Amino acid sequence: MPPRRYAIGRADEATHPDSARATLSEFLSTFMFVFAGEGAVLALNQMYPEKTLGVSGLLFVALAHALSLFAAVASSLNVSGGHINPAVTFATLVAGRVSVIRAIYYWVAQLLGAVVASLLLRLCTDGLRPIGFSVAYGIGNLNALLMEIVLTFGLVYTVFATAIDHKRGTLGTIAPLAIAFIVGANILVGGPFSGASMNPARAFGPALVGWRWRNHWVYWLGPFIGAAIAGLIYEFGIIQPTEPPVHTHHQPLAPEDY
Amino acid sequence: MPPRRYAIGRADEATHPDSARATLSEFLSTFMFVFAGEGAVLALNQMYPEKTLGVSGLLFVALAHALSLFAAVASSLNVSGGHINPAVTFATLVAGRVSVIRAIYYWVAQLLGAVVASLLLRLCTDGLRPIGFSVAYGIGNLNALLMEIVLTFGLVYTVFATAIDHKRGTLGTIAPLAIAFIVGANILVGGPFSGASMNPARAFGPALVGWRWRNHWVYWLGPFIGAAIAGLIYEFGIIQPTEPPVHTHHQPLAPEDY
Amino acid sequence: MPPRRYAIGRADEATHPDSARATLSEFLSTFMFVFAGEGAVLALNQMYPEKTLGVSGLLFVALAHALSLFAAVASSLNVSGGHINPAVTFATLVAGRVSVIRAIYYWVAQLLGAVVASLLLRLCTDGLRPIGFSVAYGIGNLNALLMEIVLTFGLVYTVFATAIDHKRGTLGTIAPLAIAFIVGANILVGGPFSGASMNPARAFGPALVGWRWRNHWVYWLGPFIGAAIAGLIYEFGIIQPTEPPVHTHHQPLAPEDY
Amino acid sequence: MPPRRYAIGRADEATHPDSARATLSEFLSTFMFVFAGEGAVLALNQMYPEKTLGVSGLLFVALAHALSLFAAVASSLNVSGGHINPAVTFATLVAGRVSVIRAIYYWVAQLLGAVVASLLLRLCTDGLRPIGFSVAYGIGNLNALLMEIVLTFGLVYTVFATAIDHKRGTLGTIAPLAIAFIVGANILVGGPFSGASMNPARAFGPALVGWRWRNHWVYWLGPFIGAAIAGLIYEFGIIQPTEPPVHTHHQPLAPEDY
Repeated sequence: MPPRRYAIGRADEATHPDSARATLSEFLSTFMFVFAGEGAVLALNQMYPEKTLGVSGLLFVALAHALSLFAAVASSLNVSGGHINPAVTFATLVAGRVSVIRAIYYWVAQLLGAVVASLLLRLCTDGLRPIGFSVAYGIGNLNALLMEIVLTFGLVYTVFATAIDHKRGTLGTIAPLAIAFIVGANILVGGPFSGASMNPARAFGPALVGWRWRNHWVYWLGPFIGAAIAGLIYEFGIIQPTEPPVHTHHQPLAPEDY
Repeated sequence: MPPRRYAIGRADEATHPDSARATLSEFLSTFMFVFAGEGAVLALNQMYPEKTLGVSGLLFVALAHALSLFAAVASSLNVSGGHINPAVTFATLVAGRVSVIRAIYYWVAQLLGAVVASLLLRLCTDGLRPIGFSVAYGIGNLNALLMEIVLTFGLVYTVFATAIDHKRGTLGTIAPLAIAFIVGANILVGGPFSGASMNPARAFGPALVGWRWRNHWVYWLGPFIGAAIAGLIYEFGIIQPTEPPVHTHHQPLAPEDY
Repeated sequence: MPPRRYAIGRADEATHPDSARATLSEFLSTFMFVFAGEGAVLALNQMYPEKTLGVSGLLFVALAHALSLFAAVASSLNVSGGHINPAVTFATLVAGRVSVIRAIYYWVAQLLGAVVASLLLRLCTDGLRPIGFSVAYGIGNLNALLMEIVLTFGLVYTVFATAIDHKRGTLGTIAPLAIAFIVGANILVGGPFSGASMNPARAFGPALVGWRWRNHWVYWLGPFIGAAIAGLIYEFGIIQPTEPPVHTHHQPLAPEDY
Repeated sequence: MPPRRYAIGRADEATHPDSARATLSEFLSTFMFVFAGEGAVLALNQMYPEKTLGVSGLLFVALAHALSLFAAVASSLNVSGGHINPAVTFATLVAGRVSVIRAIYYWVAQLLGAVVASLLLRLCTDGLRPIGFSVAYGIGNLNALLMEIVLTFGLVYTVFATAIDHKRGTLGTIAPLAIAFIVGANILVGGPFSGASMNPARAFGPALVGWRWRNHWVYWLGPFIGAAIAGLIYEFGIIQPTEPPVHTHHQPLAPEDY
């Protein structure tokens, strides 16, 4: 599908200043989001070193993610499109709304942002080891995988319906809020089962810096499957065919652009 | 009233692609909302299998509903009108703003979305049985019925004032937030009494998949009565008669359309 | 001041349909707000009959007020101006932005809405006696009065800056959110001292139906003083004199109107 | 840099009524924010005099800050630019977007607002001594300093991306929300380590009135460093050079103005 709309690896996109700005924006917003999300997990750990996550703790973690994701998406929406998540970038790639080279730029920026955030967290917290995600004891890996698929489906469906298909109205203004809130709600659901990452960068940074890889594949495969399904359903089931998206390579990846 | 504005069961509406898109949108948004709402109840149950719902637990459940309903309404507002709730659809039918055939489409989509969400929740959580709603012990059925009527009245009044009567200004942008927030607040009120469903689809999906039918009629009758009262009061008491709503059958059910 | 801009008690305003709509809107929105706010207090009481309000309980109550006030203000902003609070109406009267007759209409509607909400709560909760507000033990009445003054000052200053002085930009869209959020924050502050009513109607309805009048004067005097100070400071200190407000009597009291 | 765009200390700006309005607006909004933020800390203290801050307590404090900051920024955004924070003002100074004399006006107003709020809190709470910020026991001063740098970086980056670089779209509407939410999220992260002030005025008022100066320098140096880095990165890394900001001295400091 993507080749239909994009030439893969166009050299001009690789060196265009708008690509650099968008990539920097993805890096900084993902940094801000992972610092707050993983940081809240570490703050909980600092307050209750021996306790498992209870209802207040899960509310605490969900709110930290939702609130910071809102700021991160709002800060980058009109520069990079506000992905902050390799699975979102993958969905836009599958739906033919972004070129392969730009997707690779974004993925590198997102993973790097998550790693730098996790490293700085170690310094700020006097050496606490990042925790990241793993499947809860007593839950099967396939159940957790399905949970990540369904939760990410909801997130990416919301991204397409509010941030990308903005031609339907003035929803662009509230897109960051819808994205942040569905992530917050989904963390309340998935917390005691898969942890509800929905975002491979969010899982990868702490995994690398804390060197914890148990079930790590779940947090790549699940989000990518869920994101792809949501992108395809929205792109071909909901978007009106009478409104063909306009694609030019040299504009910044603002919502108008994809 | 509806016949005054709509011919019932027009064949062209039944096969028009916009009806299909709107129905799919209602299905997916209701799925997303029920998965998060009922999923949060199951997550609580997973963390505290033996405890009754306390203040933190009720906050947890209310936030999961409010946050996910915001994303669900925002995602479907400009495609289907963002009902996500058979009682809301009933109110628009009573107010003469939607045709009977479209209402039936929406009801089927909403109930189906709730059932599929409840089924997937069982798979994701390794078999937890959905809980849904029932009247709290010590509370009379009629008290609970009245609670559901009043709570749904507040919800549907808000829907009409912000999402439907949008000609009064730019409130359309914040309509999903007002709808989500009144649901969140009302859950804090009704939680220890009727459970505060305000939505027959939200109650039906878990009831069917978990096979729990105690007091189930309360969660159909209460919301439908409250919704009808709110729709009629707003339609004939608040909306200015000098602004007649324009109805055409072939436009998508965007806010402009009803 | 008001006579400068309004003739007091104009007969045409008393019978104009827009006055009726605005008054009905104030009644229903105040009803919705007090039902949720006082209802959350009763829900807490139902769950923990013997406990004093702790940190989770105060969060619970603050969120119920903030979330429902948002829906209430959003639902009435473009019909009545979204006061929902006799102190807000008093501030607009002192600032010369509303006529005395309309203020009286609003006050009656707000108090009636609060009383009806409190009565229905008794029915829905199987007879629980509304609680309302009183000064916490160990806190002086004058300290509590000052607290209500300062908290209401913050609320009414926000109302003027976002909902009334909307000519400065597109803030009208987020006015209901700013109003709801400052009420939520202020409840977290004043909860353990004065209870943080900031709204005589919110205090009066439960006081009448629950027949609890201890320190009731604090919840009228405090909000009225704080509101008047905020209205006067904003009106004469911040609003640009080069933008004279335009007043006509026959338009609905939309933000443009006052 | 500033001299390139501004003449320092222009006499006309010092006496222009718009400067007075903007300064008054900063004073009142900072007052409202510090009263709610520090007030929530005192309310917690009143409820649990001997307990350290737990997960619910930190949620409580973070929400009080986020909710009140939203109202404070929304109330002043179109009058003063909605800084409410000497570090934000410093970043706009470093980025060449505000003159030195206006920065000094704002700093005085912000510090004064924080002091008056702390004084009134003592009166309202029957003499409770404000608490403010200090580094948690077991955390190194340099770790806490780095925490304040990183958290303030996220805040000020969000300010630039949503409130200042508003030419990229309609994000101005949600700027106050992004700013308030990143502060809320960051408090959840930094709470158990540095306390997460991110705002020298927020730290200074309670320190002066409560006379607590332990580690006070951390809450000036950290925010100023983080803010400067964010301002410079955004100004020279993200903002498109083809959109030169337009500066005139006599307009109010609305977002259009800087």
